[in-house]
Amino acid sequence: MMFDVVVEVRLRAGIADPQGATIERALPALGFDGVTGVSVGKSIRFSLQAADESAAHAVVTDLCHRFLTNPVIEDSEISLHPAEVAAH
Amino acid sequence: MMFDVVVEVRLRAGIADPQGATIERALPALGFDGVTGVSVGKSIRFSLQAADESAAHAVVTDLCHRFLTNPVIEDSEISLHPAEVAAH
Repeated sequence: MMFDVVVEVRLRAGIADPQGATIERALPALGFDGVTGVSVGKSIRFSLQAADESAAHAVVTDLCHRFLTNPVIEDSEISLHPAEVAAH
Repeated sequence: MMFDVVVEVRLRAGIADPQGATIERALPALGFDGVTGVSVGKSIRFSLQAADESAAHAVVTDLCHRFLTNPVIEDSEISLHPAEVAAH
């Protein structure tokens, strides 16, 4: 069966995030106040063919560790649900 | 009140996604089969001070249109919920 997968890759706490810091510094000049703690990560979406949900989860976890993240500086969060079958 | 905001910025359908295509092409050689439709976007997290949820939503929508996305090629998806108050 098919699964829709979203992997969010974020920098670990304490790792410098210059992209987020730049956004945060720029916002007051553009008239946006009250925005703090900006962090920028990646979101990777794909479809996965797997036997069941636990098999899919195992594959995605492995993929994250080996390929999609740098585990020294990045964390990943997986969300996964069965693909909706098109109505027609 | 404070809100935790996640903005996911994705390329619009039909816009070339070379980063996603590269990941998809590389996976079979690494032993991952059955992965299709890879797309790579950005996820931007921040905290926002706003009067209520609808005010927060309006600010984030404006922020997306003016600053966080290029609306010609990118779509954004906003998720927003009240920040959890620390238990102690």
